[in-house]
Order: sequence, then structure tokens, then C-alpha cells
Amino acid sequence: MSEGPVIGIVMGSASDMPVMSRAAEVLRDMGIRYEMKVCSAHRLPEITAEYARTARDRGLEVIIAGAGMAAHLAGSIAAYSTLPVIGVPIKSGELNGMDALLSTVQMPSGIPVATVAINGAANGAFLAAAILSIKYPEVRGILDAYRLKAKKLLLEKIDHFAPYGGRCEGLDNSYD
Amino acid sequence: MSEGPVIGIVMGSASDMPVMSRAAEVLRDMGIRYEMKVCSAHRLPEITAEYARTARDRGLEVIIAGAGMAAHLAGSIAAYSTLPVIGVPIKSGELNGMDALLSTVQMPSGIPVATVAINGAANGAFLAAAILSIKYPEVRGILDAYRLKAKKLLLEKIDHFAPYGGRCEGLDNSYD
Amino acid sequence: MSEGPVIGIVMGSASDMPVMSRAAEVLRDMGIRYEMKVCSAHRLPEITAEYARTARDRGLEVIIAGAGMAAHLAGSIAAYSTLPVIGVPIKSGELNGMDALLSTVQMPSGIPVATVAINGAANGAFLAAAILSIKYPEVRGILDAYRLKAKKLLLEKIDHFAPYGGRCEGLDNSYD
Amino acid sequence: MSEGPVIGIVMGSASDMPVMSRAAEVLRDMGIRYEMKVCSAHRLPEITAEYARTARDRGLEVIIAGAGMAAHLAGSIAAYSTLPVIGVPIKSGELNGMDALLSTVQMPSGIPVATVAINGAANGAFLAAAILSIKYPEVRGILDAYRLKAKKLLLEKIDHFAPYGGRCEGLDNSYD
Amino acid sequence: MSEGPVIGIVMGSASDMPVMSRAAEVLRDMGIRYEMKVCSAHRLPEITAEYARTARDRGLEVIIAGAGMAAHLAGSIAAYSTLPVIGVPIKSGELNGMDALLSTVQMPSGIPVATVAINGAANGAFLAAAILSIKYPEVRGILDAYRLKAKKLLLEKIDHFAPYGGRCEGLDNSYD
Amino acid sequence: MSEGPVIGIVMGSASDMPVMSRAAEVLRDMGIRYEMKVCSAHRLPEITAEYARTARDRGLEVIIAGAGMAAHLAGSIAAYSTLPVIGVPIKSGELNGMDALLSTVQMPSGIPVATVAINGAANGAFLAAAILSIKYPEVRGILDAYRLKAKKLLLEKIDHFAPYGGRCEGLDNSYD
Amino acid sequence: MSEGPVIGIVMGSASDMPVMSRAAEVLRDMGIRYEMKVCSAHRLPEITAEYARTARDRGLEVIIAGAGMAAHLAGSIAAYSTLPVIGVPIKSGELNGMDALLSTVQMPSGIPVATVAINGAANGAFLAAAILSIKYPEVRGILDAYRLKAKKLLLEKIDHFAPYGGRCEGLDNSYD
Amino acid sequence: MSEGPVIGIVMGSASDMPVMSRAAEVLRDMGIRYEMKVCSAHRLPEITAEYARTARDRGLEVIIAGAGMAAHLAGSIAAYSTLPVIGVPIKSGELNGMDALLSTVQMPSGIPVATVAINGAANGAFLAAAILSIKYPEVRGILDAYRLKAKKLLLEKIDHFAPYGGRCEGLDNSYD
Repeated sequence: MSEGPVIGIVMGSASDMPVMSRAAEVLRDMGIRYEMKVCSAHRLPEITAEYARTARDRGLEVIIAGAGMAAHLAGSIAAYSTLPVIGVPIKSGELNGMDALLSTVQMPSGIPVATVAINGAANGAFLAAAILSIKYPEVRGILDAYRLKAKKLLLEKIDHFAPYGGRCEGLDNSYD
Repeated sequence: MSEGPVIGIVMGSASDMPVMSRAAEVLRDMGIRYEMKVCSAHRLPEITAEYARTARDRGLEVIIAGAGMAAHLAGSIAAYSTLPVIGVPIKSGELNGMDALLSTVQMPSGIPVATVAINGAANGAFLAAAILSIKYPEVRGILDAYRLKAKKLLLEKIDHFAPYGGRCEGLDNSYD
Repeated sequence: MSEGPVIGIVMGSASDMPVMSRAAEVLRDMGIRYEMKVCSAHRLPEITAEYARTARDRGLEVIIAGAGMAAHLAGSIAAYSTLPVIGVPIKSGELNGMDALLSTVQMPSGIPVATVAINGAANGAFLAAAILSIKYPEVRGILDAYRLKAKKLLLEKIDHFAPYGGRCEGLDNSYD
Repeated sequence: MSEGPVIGIVMGSASDMPVMSRAAEVLRDMGIRYEMKVCSAHRLPEITAEYARTARDRGLEVIIAGAGMAAHLAGSIAAYSTLPVIGVPIKSGELNGMDALLSTVQMPSGIPVATVAINGAANGAFLAAAILSIKYPEVRGILDAYRLKAKKLLLEKIDHFAPYGGRCEGLDNSYD
Repeated sequence: MSEGPVIGIVMGSASDMPVMSRAAEVLRDMGIRYEMKVCSAHRLPEITAEYARTARDRGLEVIIAGAGMAAHLAGSIAAYSTLPVIGVPIKSGELNGMDALLSTVQMPSGIPVATVAINGAANGAFLAAAILSIKYPEVRGILDAYRLKAKKLLLEKIDHFAPYGGRCEGLDNSYD
Repeated sequence: MSEGPVIGIVMGSASDMPVMSRAAEVLRDMGIRYEMKVCSAHRLPEITAEYARTARDRGLEVIIAGAGMAAHLAGSIAAYSTLPVIGVPIKSGELNGMDALLSTVQMPSGIPVATVAINGAANGAFLAAAILSIKYPEVRGILDAYRLKAKKLLLEKIDHFAPYGGRCEGLDNSYD
Repeated sequence: MSEGPVIGIVMGSASDMPVMSRAAEVLRDMGIRYEMKVCSAHRLPEITAEYARTARDRGLEVIIAGAGMAAHLAGSIAAYSTLPVIGVPIKSGELNGMDALLSTVQMPSGIPVATVAINGAANGAFLAAAILSIKYPEVRGILDAYRLKAKKLLLEKIDHFAPYGGRCEGLDNSYD
Repeated sequence: MSEGPVIGIVMGSASDMPVMSRAAEVLRDMGIRYEMKVCSAHRLPEITAEYARTARDRGLEVIIAGAGMAAHLAGSIAAYSTLPVIGVPIKSGELNGMDALLSTVQMPSGIPVATVAINGAANGAFLAAAILSIKYPEVRGILDAYRLKAKKLLLEKIDHFAPYGGRCEGLDNSYD
């Protein structure tokens, strides 16, 4: 992997930071370098276009774009770059993010956006890592380790339900 | 009924416990033995498959599975077992549980999931009891008694509205 | 199993027959006896109530009820019987069956309806068989055999895609 | 008008009282006699049927029925009575009342329910008064007076916006 | 009943006639006099206002108003008249009538519209008859007779399903 | 008005022409000069940006932009121009145009799009004319004449319903 | 521009003021004169009609109308005036403003409403300014200045994210 | 790139082939090797699990999974593999593919699915190519060439509208 950031995290508004920072946290935990920016498709269209056009040559390999309402950011970036672009629909305004989901996922043929769940910025980062993993064996290792750790944590959490009946592997905890 | 649990309550995440514990309460009140587990279709797929595959032989007769968002747990269990599987769509994420409802109920032909209301874990338990009632006469008796008690409670509650006009059977409480 | 029908298939209107007859076909294929009736919750409420109230004593063990629009039939039957009641929301009117789905699945606590997919009458029958299977070992056998046959059929169908690249088990069919 | 109540207000659950009591308030203000009851279509089906069947002969002329989720109450009453039945879909559960709206309004031909807005119990009462007004000239007078008063109140409220620019009839309050 | 029409059927566009004529057919069958008009809230607002304002004095007792898309017709008439106004949301445009349903039913407090199902013009007529029935005993008789006839017709139709298992009252037609 | 076109009609795809040509027809009937182009926000982003940036200086006064699915065209143009931009959501793909409606109307503060109905290209033209009418008295005259003509046409059409009961102004056509 | 107000801001209820006052703030900041009124389509239909009919002659050039639920205000005004009418769907009641959006935007051909986002009153004002800008060069200047200022503000806000990686133009802020 | 297929195209049912074959066509045009299979999450769960678990070691680098209704296929594969998994929601059943969209995109944290538009199989292939392009410079070249060609084709198509007013670059085609 190059010395600079390989993932670009962009968002349509500074108010999207609480959601999008979860993507940064996941990448940080995995040791994957990223940059993070506000780049509105509607209010800074020239900067957004420039950002997308130069992304690959600046060393970025995946772009994660989050936006709410008529969420055009991911689509605008995909219009200017053939890098894989991940769209995170953000809940904002009055429609629970359904507007952002449809604005992000229903792209026309030839300009895809890899859409994740509403407010699913963490999964945007996991997806970016999965993409990197086809090129960088070390990222595959990181992902495998993460999944293993997640399974262990989940199994530990399950133990905390012991009073209710708990663990998947034991059947001694039924009510009678 | 066998000595062990006959109902398996599973859920996709530990955070589903506040909803799914209502199923446990209903079964406990009815004296029906159950076990309760966390078994994510996505994060613990092998354990979930194993759980479903062995369920009938371990003595389970109904499985109640609750999950949110892209709720695949009930469907995954139904894919591995021909026991009756009840799906409880759980409100989680930003779409009020509509995503979980559609992910649970719209199953393909041959692999049904018996879906109840969003967050309707209590009804998951009542439905499980109705299913058991075709085999165990004592469960039929319990269900009949429960319905009678519920009607009485409802009629008592109605009495509390006396100042407003109350009881169904009396017409002396109109405004004039 | 008793000599008479064990499954009751009811529907809100004669126009629901094309959908609901798929439930009958599945049961017939499995050799499970059923009866089939039109019983509108709104236009024949007394007959519907009578039907539900007497169902268990007449030997029925599961009721499959299909209705469209403000689909109250399954709920009305569940109000009068503690048998397991399966609801099939039927597409009818202008809303693609979403009205029937919500009218069927969003039942209040204590009166569950086991809801399957919109127009999913075949799955209504498969679910009924799964319920019977906890009591009748022969139905378990039938279900297991059905699943095996369905898998084989699916694998055969897959072969038909050979020109496209086909079979799951072979990797020799890729484009190059 | 007879001495007894002419409007029946019924609701599916005691928890619907905060919404449905607004119907009672409107009727009380208009001096129209009503009775108010809890009559679940699912948990007290026999009492609901009896209530509907006897309603006209007991002197009722309109029934206002409020219920949430799979809201079958108004439809169940309409199935047993040819009186005008007004349905109030109540927000309850997780779907903002959309389930109750569709369950109430999408009735099959021959059994209509006069549906008002979600949680629109006050309008249920206004509609009941409009219906009575075709028979009782005094109710027409009450409705006309109400509308006049409402217009006056609205115009008074408008005056409170004077600092913003206020009144409809004056144009002297613009910003410049 | 007066000599002139007592029901006014209005619609927002001539293209609504195929739907709204079903209301006319029902009223004609019942021998209830009606008039039928096109009165767009948006394209003929003055005529619509005049129509509503004079409706009661011209002898009308109920108005049935059908419109599609942003369906304002019923609400506009209710704004100018305290007669009971029945709204028929009509499927038109691209949204299956959901736009018309919400535009018709979600009226503000004080100005109710009695809404029926999407394209439910027949039920608009049945509801109008139910409203008239509180004043005219002969209409009550007509409605009672209609319901009886509808039940008989339904039971006859059920007989046609005999090869499938047919009648509600008989259980001799099960598959075995 | 200048010699060149004052309205720009743009659309995201050549397949939008059947819908968008209705806007052209309305403008042609009104004698308002327009130009018509395909300018995809996703597939020709640079041309779209250039088009929008130069629009006002080239003499355009209103832009009507139609697009389907994740309909970003109107928003993209509004991002580059402070002219009034009218968005026409086009039904395309599988969601009845609801995706296009939300993608067009839910714009962030500062970059508005004047949205009309799904497939409402004719209204896009009428709205453009209304906007021009604040500057060009002759357009006001054209609009007034159009409305008058539309009312006359509507009243004429109403006459065709005479067998059903017809005209708004007459009450002699009721059923009896 | 004339001495009096050129923009009319109207709303269906006094409770819409918190939303609609944002339109006033934007216009005030831009130095555009406006008037502000409550004019319910349903509760003050005559005043609303009069307001719309006289709007153009009183010097208004654009009307911004906000309303909730079955939001008929903008459409009612458009029915009586050929001025450009901007509709602001307001979230009110239980459906997140989806009812108001569809009631406002789905207008029939010939009577357009320029709809903005749910609760998007600020954009209603920006759109009104864009419309005025085709006639008044000074408004074009104001809009251009506003956009420039908004871009600067956005770029400044971006700087505050420096600890996260910040600025669009610099790439020195990546995580490593 | 290895000698074998690098993209796996899987679908839940043979009936999904008309949609999913578009992904194959795009990949074939680009010269990217793929394999194509039917692998139902519900009817062939063991084969699906095996397929996903072995995918990376068999040389696959991206998996494109299409399914309808309660579309669990993409999620099931993502549960067993850390390769990038692209989900194509397929319209099937009665809900226009909205059920498949939500079942595919709303994945829990840690197990992402890169979702494209309903029936957007072509975009699934374009996205897969974008992912490969970070590793294989030749794929980047293919994508760049494709975009250029698509722009040219679009501009040519635009010429066909010349009679309507056509080309983006010329303004000589306005109506006057």
C-alpha cells in the first residue's frame, strides 16, 4: 500500500460527521490510511468534481461518500471517477433516510454506487476493506482477524444472558 | 411434552433482548419450557445452521426467531429445519422495522416463515403455544384459560372508564 | 391423523381462488386432507365466526385464511379460535397487497396470525405441514422428502444454464 | 333526537382513550349525547358483534370506532350494522398508523367505513355531527355556529403574528 | 325524501367517470336519486365552491366526491358545506392512488372527509345510503335487503367451488 | 423577450423524450421559445455543468430538467446556476417514480429545485410560463387565455355526460 | 421592484409559523420585501380565494404557501392565480410530511405548484429569489453573493475538522 | 489476472436469469472472466455456504449476487466470505423489488453488501470492474474506454433529436 491515504471519506455536510466518523474509526482500528473531507455535490460542485477526477492519481483506491436527503454526493463522485464509490445514505430531514437511500442506490447503468444501509458508515469502511483485500493480502488478514474477534465478542456477550438461558452451544439453560 | 425445552427463542443480536424477552415471559407464564439464545445469521452463520439442523432432534418443536434490519435469521433457520419457524421483525435502524418485516415475511415458496407483527414477540409466543396446542391438550387448556382471563381483565379495565361512559354491556353512561 | 380434513383453507372472496388454490395443490401433493371455503369476515361474519368456533372440534388442526385489501379474515378467525391461523395477504385493489399484508400481520397481543408472503398461498400450505409435522411423524417424512426433491429439481434446472456457465459444483464453465 | 345517546364511540383498547376522548370532547361541546366503550374486535368479538347488531335499535345513529395496527374494529362493526360507521385509524405500534389507516379504509364493496385521518378522532365527531345534520336541523345550526367561531378564532390567532406581518386582510405589515 | 336528487356525485375530471359511475349504479339499483357532475377543485374552483355552498339548500343530503393525484375536491367541498362529504381517492398518475388517498383522508380538524377505499366508488354509494338510512326508514329497508341478497349471492357462488371442496356449512367435500 | 430560446428543457436520457416532449408542446402552443437537450448528470457531467453555468448568459430564464431513478439532473443544474430550475421526476425503473420524486424534491437549503408531479412535464412548462409572466405581460395574457380556454373545454366535456346527469350548472339531470 | 411586498408567505395554520418563518428570515437577509399570513384552504376558503385572486394586482410576484397533512393551500392558491406558487409541505400529524408532499406536488395538468422539500421553507425563499432574479438584476447579484458566502462558510467549517483530516484541498491530514 | 473466472455471478432462482444475464453481458464485453450459478440461500443453503467459503481460494475476487423478495443470498454469501459482495435486488413478487432492496442493503455492521439498483445487474458488473480496477491497470483502461464510448454514443443519440431541438452544444435548434 502507498504511503498516503488509500480511502477517501467525504460527506455532504459537516452535520454528517457523527455518522461518517464511524467509518474513520473502523479504518483506524484496521490501520488503513484515510482522508476525510466535506464536499457537497450541491454547494461545492466544482471542488467535488475536482476531488473525484484526481482521486485515483492521488493514490486513493476507494471513496466512501455519505449524504442525506436528495443524496447526490456519491453519484456525483462516481460520475467523475471509475474508482469504486461506496454510498452511505444518511438519515436527515423528515423521511428517515429513505430519500437518501433511493437517491444513492437507484443509479443509472454505467455509473454504479455501492450502497450500504442507512447511516451504515461502519459498513462503508468494512466494504472498503473487503475491496482492498483483493489487492493487499495483509488487509485480508486484518478482515479475517476482525471477523474472528467479532464472533468471540458475540459469544461472550451471549454468556451475559445466562440467567435467561444464554449460550448457543448449551441447552442446560431452559426454563422449567 | 419432553423434559427439555420445546421452544427455541433465538435473536440476531444481544440488543434484541428487550423485545424478545416478552416471548419468554409469555411462555414462562404458560409453563412452557424454552431456551433462549443469540444466533446471528450473518455473524455466526455456522452456529445458526448447526442450531437449526439439530433443533428437532434435540426436542424443540417450534423456533421463534427475532431480528432487525435485513432480518435473515428466521429465514436462515427455516432453510435448515422443517420445524415451524416464527419470525419476529424487530424495529432497529432507521426504517421503523419495515425492512425487518419485508425481509422476514417475503420468503420464497417452500421455505415459509410464520411472521408476526413488528416487535410482536409476545404474539410469537402465543402463536407457538397455538401450534403446540394441536399436540398437547394441556396447552389448549392453558390457551383457553388465558383468553378467558384476558377478556375478564379487559372488561375490568373498561370499568375504569366509567367516568367517561365505560362498560360495553351498560348504556346508562352516556353524556347528556 | 383423523379421517376428515385437518386443514381448513378459507378465503374472503371467490376471486381469491386462483391464489388460494395453490395451497390446495401443495396439500394434495403431500396427501394432507383439507377443506376449502369462502368465508368473508365482512359479508358473512356470522358464518365465519361459527366456522372458527367449531373448527377444532370438527377435527381441523390448522386454518389457512387468505384475503385482500383490509384483510380481516385471518384475524377474525383467530379471534374465535386458538388453533394456529395462517394468514395469506392477497394482492387485490390498487396497493399491491401492502394493505392486506399490514392488515394481516399487525395483530394485537394475544391474537396472533402466522403471516406469509403476499399471494404466498403455497407457503401457507408448507407452513401448515410444518406445524402438523410436530405431531405426525409421517408429515415430517413428507416434508423432508419434499425438500430433497426440490433441491434435486433446482440442481437439474441449474444444468439448463450450462451455456451460460451453469452448475454450482463445477467451475469449468466460465467465460474466457 | 331521542333521550339516549345517538353516537357510539368505541375503541379497540383502553390505551386508545387519549386519542378517542377528543371525539367525546367535540360532541360534548356540541351537546350531542354519546356513549363510550372499549370493544376489541379481536379480544371481545362476541361483545363487539352484539354491540353492532343492537346499535340501531338501541337508538344509536352513528358509530365512531378507533383502533390501531391491524385495525379491524370499524370493519367488524360495519359487518354487523348498516348504520354509518366512522373509522379512526390510531397510531400505535411501529408504523405511524399507516397500518391502521389501510386496515380501516380499504374495505370491500358493500361494507363501507367512513375513514378520517390518523388519530383524527375530533374529525370523527365532526363527521358524525355532519351526518346527524341531515336529520336534525338543530345540529346543522350547531355546525354552522362552530365553523363561524372557528373562523373567528383563526383570525384572532392571525393577529398574534402582527410582528411578523400578520393579518390576511391588511397589507401594511410587510418587511421593508 | 324530496323530489329532486339527494346525493351529489362529483368528480375532478371526466376521466374519473369509469370509476365514479359505479357509485351511480349502486344508487340507481337502490332507487336513490342522484345528480352527477364534473367539478374540478383546481380548474373550476368557483363553480366547485358555488356547488358546495348551495348543495344543502338545493336538497342534497350527501356529496360523494372522487378525485385523483393531489385530490383536493372532497376537501374543497367540505370547506364550503357542512353536509357529510364522502371522498373517493382515485388511482391516476403513477402512485397507485396512494397520493389521492392521503390527500383525501388527512384532513385538518373541523373539516372532515369520510374517505373510502382507493377507487371505492361503490362503497361511496353504500356509505351515502347508510347515512340516509338514519333519516329515511325505507333506505334502511333497502340496505337490509341488499345485504341479505349479497349474502345469498355469495353463498351461491361458494357452491360453484364444489369441485374444490365448496360450501361453508358442509364438510363432506374435503380431499382424501 | 430575447430572440433566442428562453426556456431550456433538458433530460437525463433519450428515453425520457416521450414524457418531456409534453413540456415542449405546451410551450410551443404558448409561443414561448425553448431549446431541448439530453444532458445526463452522471454520464455527461462536464457538459451538464457547462450547460448550467452558461445558461443565464445565453439568454435562458428558466430550466426544466427531467430525470428518472436517482434523479440528480435538476439538482446538478441548480448547483451551477441561480436561475429557477424546475424538476420533473420521471417514472423509470421499478419504483413508480417515487425514487425520482424524492431525489428531485428533497434538496438541501440554498439549492432549491421547483418540483412538479411525477411525469408532470406539461406542468413543468406551465410553471415556467408562470415564472416568465412576472416579467413579460404578454405571457400573463397567454396564461389567462389558456385557463379560460381550459375551463370552457372542461365545461364542454361535462356536457358529454348528459346521459349520466351532466352539467354543473343544471340540476335537471338527476336519476329518478 | 415596487414599494410594497413582492413575496406573499402564507400558511395553513398558526402552528406552521416555526417552519415558515425560516422563509421570512432568508428573504429579510436578502432585502426582499414580503408579507406573511395565515390563510387556511379549508377553514378560510373565501379569504384564501380572495387573497390569491388579488395577489398579482396587489404587486405580489411569487407566493410561498406552506401546509401540512392533506396540504391543499398551495394548490388552492394556484387554482385562483397564475403567479408562480411555491408549495412547502410541512411535517404535521403522523406521516412525517409524506402526506403533505404528495398533496402538494401531485397537481393536475395546468395548475402547477413548485414544490420544495418537506419543511423546506428556506428553499421556498431561495426559489422565490431565483424567480425574481430573471426580472431584477439586483436579486441575481444578491443570489450570487449568497452562494459565494455559503461556499466560504462551508470551507471554513471544513477547517474545523482538521483533527479528523479536514480540508478538501489538502491531503496532509490522513491517518497513518 | 488468473486464468480462471475472477467474478462469480450467483442468483437465487433460475427465474432471475433474464435480469442477471445483463451482468454477464457487461463482463463479457469487457473481457473479464466470470462464472454463473444458481445458489439459493434458502433452498440450497449448504451449497451456498460452501460456494462462499471457497470463493477466494478458487480465485474469485468479487461476487455478484441477485435475489428477489426476502433477498438473503448476498447477505448469506457475505456471512461466509470477506470478498467484496455486490447485491442486486430483483423485482419479483408483488412489491416492485422494494422488499428485495431492503433485504439486501440493510445489513448489520461488519457484514456489508454493496447494493446496486433494483434489477441493476449491469451496474453490478460495472461495480465489479471498478473494484478490479484498483488491482489490474488493464481493467482501469477498459473502464475508461467504456465511459468514453458511452459518452460518444449518448452524444450521437442526442443528434437524433435534432428535429426536436437536439444537440447540447448547439443552440440553433430552438422553437420560434
